[in-house]
Amino acid sequence: MITISEEFLSPEFKKKIILEKHAQLPQLLQNLGIDCWIIFVRETGTNSDAAMEYVVGNDVVGKSAFIFSLKANKLKKISIVAYFDANTEREKGIWDEVIGYLNSFKDHLKKKIQDFNPNKIALNFSVEDPTSDGLTHGMFLILKQLLPNFADQFVSAQNIISAIQGIKTPTEIKLIRKACQITEDINKFMTSILQIGQFETEIQKRFQLEVAKHQVGYSWQKDQNPAIDCSVEKEYGHVFPSPKNLTKKGLALHNDFGIRYHGYCSDLQRMWFFGSKDELPEELRRGLNTIVKAIEMAAEAIKPGKLGYEIDKVARDYVISQGYAEFKHALGHQVGLHAHDGGNLIGPLWERYGSSPKQPLQIGQVFTLEPSLKTQNHGMIAMEEMIVVTETGCDFLVPPKKDFIFV
Amino acid sequence: MITISEEFLSPEFKKKIILEKHAQLPQLLQNLGIDCWIIFVRETGTNSDAAMEYVVGNDVVGKSAFIFSLKANKLKKISIVAYFDANTEREKGIWDEVIGYLNSFKDHLKKKIQDFNPNKIALNFSVEDPTSDGLTHGMFLILKQLLPNFADQFVSAQNIISAIQGIKTPTEIKLIRKACQITEDINKFMTSILQIGQFETEIQKRFQLEVAKHQVGYSWQKDQNPAIDCSVEKEYGHVFPSPKNLTKKGLALHNDFGIRYHGYCSDLQRMWFFGSKDELPEELRRGLNTIVKAIEMAAEAIKPGKLGYEIDKVARDYVISQGYAEFKHALGHQVGLHAHDGGNLIGPLWERYGSSPKQPLQIGQVFTLEPSLKTQNHGMIAMEEMIVVTETGCDFLVPPKKDFIFV
Repeated sequence: MITISEEFLSPEFKKKIILEKHAQLPQLLQNLGIDCWIIFVRETGTNSDAAMEYVVGNDVVGKSAFIFSLKANKLKKISIVAYFDANTEREKGIWDEVIGYLNSFKDHLKKKIQDFNPNKIALNFSVEDPTSDGLTHGMFLILKQLLPNFADQFVSAQNIISAIQGIKTPTEIKLIRKACQITEDINKFMTSILQIGQFETEIQKRFQLEVAKHQVGYSWQKDQNPAIDCSVEKEYGHVFPSPKNLTKKGLALHNDFGIRYHGYCSDLQRMWFFGSKDELPEELRRGLNTIVKAIEMAAEAIKPGKLGYEIDKVARDYVISQGYAEFKHALGHQVGLHAHDGGNLIGPLWERYGSSPKQPLQIGQVFTLEPSLKTQNHGMIAMEEMIVVTETGCDFLVPPKKDFIFV
Repeated sequence: MITISEEFLSPEFKKKIILEKHAQLPQLLQNLGIDCWIIFVRETGTNSDAAMEYVVGNDVVGKSAFIFSLKANKLKKISIVAYFDANTEREKGIWDEVIGYLNSFKDHLKKKIQDFNPNKIALNFSVEDPTSDGLTHGMFLILKQLLPNFADQFVSAQNIISAIQGIKTPTEIKLIRKACQITEDINKFMTSILQIGQFETEIQKRFQLEVAKHQVGYSWQKDQNPAIDCSVEKEYGHVFPSPKNLTKKGLALHNDFGIRYHGYCSDLQRMWFFGSKDELPEELRRGLNTIVKAIEMAAEAIKPGKLGYEIDKVARDYVISQGYAEFKHALGHQVGLHAHDGGNLIGPLWERYGSSPKQPLQIGQVFTLEPSLKTQNHGMIAMEEMIVVTETGCDFLVPPKKDFIFV
């Protein structure tokens, strides 16, 4: 048989992680006082529901309900799907019951819910957390019409989804670490061919050739991945490479690069300098040292139970103390099946972040640490590391970079 | 510069199609009596809004509103995005105005809408059409709270989205045709290496190696693409290949295979037979002829203005007239940036299809024609072709197959 390394999890691997996630549910639902969770979707290849990836694991075409109900500490898992999606669900072997309907979905759903008669029905909508907000408004309207007697019991599934998404299983951490390692392997290889006189667009294409050779996927959209920045005017972010900006002697090069290994993402930022250590301008030296130190200080402050904004403040205050403007984004976000994995955040208490920076960090959560700053004459400086929260603090998933890579 | 053939549209190509779509909007909004359309999204890499692909063209991270407003036949296009998404929007050159906010989104949106004071605000929710249902329920709640004075003016954007999605521009048709051609090239190559004694899983991997060599993407999830079926017990559909089913002398092999070329999809079904024409069992011969004839008859019946269910009935009635049970799915769906592109359908008047088969076919719409049937002793038979509706009827995007491919 031919072996192709997959961008996506193999079915067996996926099943393992899904069952690990299902095993978290009884205790979690119990703690939250929720006795029923319904994921209600259709044509997920068109508009997806991110929560499905953790507990269902594949796209469906027809109108589908995935029901997790808890009675006397016993979890029951039912999927109601169109007949043409039913074989897939049965073959996965993760459901207690699979109902494949031919024409009418509604009678099956009504009956199951009426029989179970839950106190609360958690649905995937959330004002605050994008990952917990996969239920479309049209589907919400359909459900309200199908279950009029239960509409008052609808609650947000945000706390369920944040927990099963955020707390990575050992299998998941292994895959994320491997994604980081491949990213660093490509960064290392690229160092050997980077030179003066290359355009940002050209460098991005060359990175992407390496991604293809490694047969891995992209953590975010390909035309901005890696982001490549070698102009002192450029604002970093998810931006296109420019066909005009050219690497030059004495300039820094920055990338923001993430690959997807068996579905799981990396998200790292690195910096190169075209010149020797001696030729590095003082502004870049001081800027980079500030970023490295801010990451070190934040990592040292991380402990389970610490609140996100407390860690953000450590790095942010340090950058400000060194005379720079504060960075205009959160210090770190969660990473998993998505580069931006949602859930709680290591970020400041700004309106746009809602309550996400106020949550305690939990063992098994994976975060980026990515401060940035702007120098006066030499453009921006930023690095991004990835850590997993442990019992006693945190571990870096790959060794953190302490300096520019000199080319 | 290194040239890598892209799964996704290059920015210039994408911009061309987006501007073609924007150009459809003034007349369309006018006809529908809608003076404002808002696409309201966040973290679209996590939960996507399918309509964005036609008129925005890339993912965004922060909370974003894309506003199309019409006053005195003049379209105004505004994007309000987080500052870190703003450069991308500006560089695309498709907006009249780009607002990049730092902390607070709501003031900008409120001001724009209050100033414009629209009669109707179309939003991306729909009970019927999945593609028009990209607005999540959480985002709907946010919008209702932000614009309380306009909540009564919210209407579904379904008619806008169906039109701009369904009526393909010449550029789009070119790309879809090319996707079909590559699919057929791979089918042809695979014919040269298919043999007796191969497992479904093995055959799928071999197809996927060819997809990688052509540097194209997948129309639907990779682990079910192509679907590979060589057992007389197997129900076709979006199913996994089996590591147990083996190709055998006298058995038919079926695939359902779609690739993505510059974002645009193919979706074709083909059949092989392991043996010579003379060795083909009568049941398979009669079954295949019925499928081919049903496709021919449906294609001949297609004209702009015909209703979807009228065309479905032609093929369905013919299959039934030959003594087979009627197929349990629609005859054809639209194809474009998605294998299942939503919008109106060539399908029967069944509850689960809502009003989608009652719409008239329009010039420029691309559909599959995919009848199937079950033989008594030799498993299922199905073929799938793709056509584009023309002024006088329809054109096949690649020549339709009229028989098994004999191996």
